[in-house]
Amino acid sequence: LVARMRQFGETIFAEMSRLAAETGSINLGQGFPDTDGPRSLLQGAARRIEQGVNQYPPGPGRVELRGAVAADRARRYGLEYDPDTEVYITVGATAGIAASVLGLVEPGDEVVLFEPMYDSYAGVIALAGGVRRPVALRPDPDQGGRFRFDADELRAAIGPRTRMIIVNSPHNPTGTVFTPDELDVIAELCREHDLIALTDEVYEHLTFDDAAHVPLATRAGMRDRTVAVSSAGKTFSVTAWKTGWVMGPEPLVRAARTVNQFLTFTANGALQLAIADAIRDETEWVAAQRDALQRKRDRLAAGLREAGFGVMRPQGTYFVMTDIRPLGYSDGIELARALPGRAGVAAVPAQVLYDNVAEGRHLVRFAFCKRDEVLDDAVIRLTRYA
Amino acid sequence: LVARMRQFGETIFAEMSRLAAETGSINLGQGFPDTDGPRSLLQGAARRIEQGVNQYPPGPGRVELRGAVAADRARRYGLEYDPDTEVYITVGATAGIAASVLGLVEPGDEVVLFEPMYDSYAGVIALAGGVRRPVALRPDPDQGGRFRFDADELRAAIGPRTRMIIVNSPHNPTGTVFTPDELDVIAELCREHDLIALTDEVYEHLTFDDAAHVPLATRAGMRDRTVAVSSAGKTFSVTAWKTGWVMGPEPLVRAARTVNQFLTFTANGALQLAIADAIRDETEWVAAQRDALQRKRDRLAAGLREAGFGVMRPQGTYFVMTDIRPLGYSDGIELARALPGRAGVAAVPAQVLYDNVAEGRHLVRFAFCKRDEVLDDAVIRLTRYA
Ligand SMILES: CSCCC(=O)C(=O)O
Ligand SMILES: CSCCC(=O)C(=O)O
Repeated sequence: LVARMRQFGETIFAEMSRLAAETGSINLGQGFPDTDGPRSLLQGAARRIEQGVNQYPPGPGRVELRGAVAADRARRYGLEYDPDTEVYITVGATAGIAASVLGLVEPGDEVVLFEPMYDSYAGVIALAGGVRRPVALRPDPDQGGRFRFDADELRAAIGPRTRMIIVNSPHNPTGTVFTPDELDVIAELCREHDLIALTDEVYEHLTFDDAAHVPLATRAGMRDRTVAVSSAGKTFSVTAWKTGWVMGPEPLVRAARTVNQFLTFTANGALQLAIADAIRDETEWVAAQRDALQRKRDRLAAGLREAGFGVMRPQGTYFVMTDIRPLGYSDGIELARALPGRAGVAAVPAQVLYDNVAEGRHLVRFAFCKRDEVLDDAVIRLTRYA
Repeated sequence: LVARMRQFGETIFAEMSRLAAETGSINLGQGFPDTDGPRSLLQGAARRIEQGVNQYPPGPGRVELRGAVAADRARRYGLEYDPDTEVYITVGATAGIAASVLGLVEPGDEVVLFEPMYDSYAGVIALAGGVRRPVALRPDPDQGGRFRFDADELRAAIGPRTRMIIVNSPHNPTGTVFTPDELDVIAELCREHDLIALTDEVYEHLTFDDAAHVPLATRAGMRDRTVAVSSAGKTFSVTAWKTGWVMGPEPLVRAARTVNQFLTFTANGALQLAIADAIRDETEWVAAQRDALQRKRDRLAAGLREAGFGVMRPQGTYFVMTDIRPLGYSDGIELARALPGRAGVAAVPAQVLYDNVAEGRHLVRFAFCKRDEVLDDAVIRLTRYA
C-alpha cells in the first residue's frame, strides 16, 4: 500500500456492518434504510434491464438523467446548469467527490473541511496528496446542541496553500443543516481567498421541522466556483444503486470528468433512466419519506434519551449523534466495538471522523432510517445494556 | 484540472460514441455488444431489484459473487483464492485497475506496460504520479500479423524504479492472446526485479480457434505478486453493469480495497447476485457466445479485407485491428474523426493508445460484437467510402 494511504484501514462503515452481520445485530451503524424506495423506481429499473438497457451509456451519463437533475435543481433552488456540460453522472456521490478532489487538488494543496468529516473526504484528499485542515463543528448549548462552526476558526484554517473547502450540508454525522448566514460566511471566505467549494448534498431532501437545504452555490459569487455533488441513494432509499451527479461550471465539471473516466468510466444506464423518472414523478414520495424520517428521528431520539444517552437532535440526514458520557462511558470506539456482541446493536463511533480525536471521543452515531419496530427493538436492547 | 492530468481529454471511446450518436452511425468504436447477455442473468437482476436487494452490499462485495468468482478461477485455471480476503468486488474492471494502481504505485514509480495500451492505464498511472514505460507490441509477419513484444525491449524497459507491470491478455486493441512462453518471459523478469504484476483479463472467455487464456498468476512464482482483474461486462454482454473483481494475495488486494473504499465504496448488490448465478449456470452461454464472436470476427475481417483494409486477425477480444495504409490513408485519427460523418461508421484510432504515436498512426480498430446484419451494413458503408 502506498505510504500516503497507510493511515487508512477498513472504513468504519464496512467494519461496523461486518460486526453487525457477524453478530446478527440490528445495524444502526452504516446508513441505509431497511425499506426500499418507490415501487415505480424499482419497477422502472427492472423493466429497463429486462428490456435491454444493459450496454455502456454515454460517458457523461444518460441525457434523460442529466436533464432531470438540471430541471430539478433549477426548480428547487433557482440554479441553472447546462445538462450537456455542467451535469455529469458518477457512480454515487463517493465517485463524484473522489473525481472532483483528485481532479482539482494538487499535491501539497490544502483542503479545509468540517469535522467530524465523512470518511471518504480524508481518503481522497490523502490520495490526491493534499493536506486536510479540519475545522470543528461543536454542539452549541444555545442552539439545543446543534453542531456549528466558529467563523474565526474557519478563517484561521485558510492559508495561502488552501485550494478547496468541502461543505457537507445536511451534515453527516451531526445532522446540522447549514443556515444561509453560515453559508454566507463560507462564501465570503471563498471569494476572498479564491477557493473552490465542493459541496456534498446527498441528504438535501432529508431535512426536518423548519430546516431547509440551501445549496452553497446559491450564495453570492459561488455558482461558478462550486462543484456540487448529490445522488439518488439517500433521496430514494436505494443506497446500492450508486448513482450520483456532479454539477458546476464547465471547467470544474470537466476536471472531475477527466479523472472519473479512469476511475469508473461510466455508471449503470438502466438505473439512470429509472432515477430520471423518479426525480420528475416521485416528489410526493420524497416529501412523505421526509415526514416519516422526522417521526423516526423523534422516536429514536426519545428512546436513546430514555436509555440515558445525551442526544443531539439532528435537523437533517438520517443520523442522530449521541454523547455517551451520561451513561458513564468515555470512549466511543470501545463502546461501538462492544455493542454488537453485547447489546446486539451496531452504531458508528464519531471519533474516527475527527483528526482532533479528543473532540469526538465520546460521540456515537445511530441511524434512524429503519422500520419503527426495529428502532424500538434497538432501544430496548440498548436500554437493557446501558 | 491538476497538472498531471492535463495531458488527458475526453477518452477516445466517449468521443467516438458521441460522434456515432450525433451522426447516427453504426458504432464499431467503443466495445459493447448490441445484444444483451443471457436472459436468466437479466431476469435475475430484475427480480432482485423488484424484490428488494437495493441497499449497500458488504464493502468487499456479496459473498455469493466472491465465492462464485473464486470457484470459477479454481476450476478453470487451478488458481485458489480465499473469497473473504483475496477476492474483492469493484465497479467494473476499470475501478479495480484504478484502485490497484493508486494503491500500489508511489509517485515516481515506473510502470511497464504494452502499447497500444487501454487508455485507463495511462490515466491512472498519471493520477498516481507514476511514470509509464511502454513496450511496443508489433505485428509479426511470421505470425500472420499477430502483435507481439520483443523480450529484449521488455527487459530494457525495466529499471531500478520499476514497481509494476501491467499485462492485458487477451489484449485490447490488438486481439493478441499472450502465450505461456511469453508469460514466462514476463514472469521471470517480475521475479528477478521483484515487480508486482497487474493483469487485466476482462476478455478471458473471448478467445478464438486454439488460443486459450492463461492467467499470468499461473506462472512460477507469480500467484503472490499478481493482482488479477476481471469483470462480468464482456463475458456476459452487459457492459453497463460495471461489476468487476480483483483477485490476488491478501496484501495486494487489501491495498486495492483501501483505495477503492474512497473511490466508489461498493458496487450494486442485485447485479452481483445475478452475476454469481450466471458464473455458475451459464457456462454454455459463454461458450456459445465465444463461437458466435469467432464467426463475427471472420465475417468482419473478410469484409474489411475486401474493402481494402490491412487486417490483423485477432486471437481474442471483440476487436479487429486494421492498417489503413493500403487504402491510401496514413493518419488513423483523421480517418476515424471523418468516418462517422462521411461513411456512417465509427471506429477507434489506435494511435491515441500509444506514447510512441508513430507506431500506431496508421492503425484503426473495429468492434465486431454486433449483429451480423449490422456488420454487413458497416462493411457496405466502408466499402463505398474507401
Ligand atoms: C458509503 S457507506 C456509508 C454510508 C453513509 O453514508 C454513512 O453511514 O455515513
Ligand atoms: C470503458 S469504455 C471502452 C470499452 C472498451 O473496452 C473499449 O472500447 O476498448
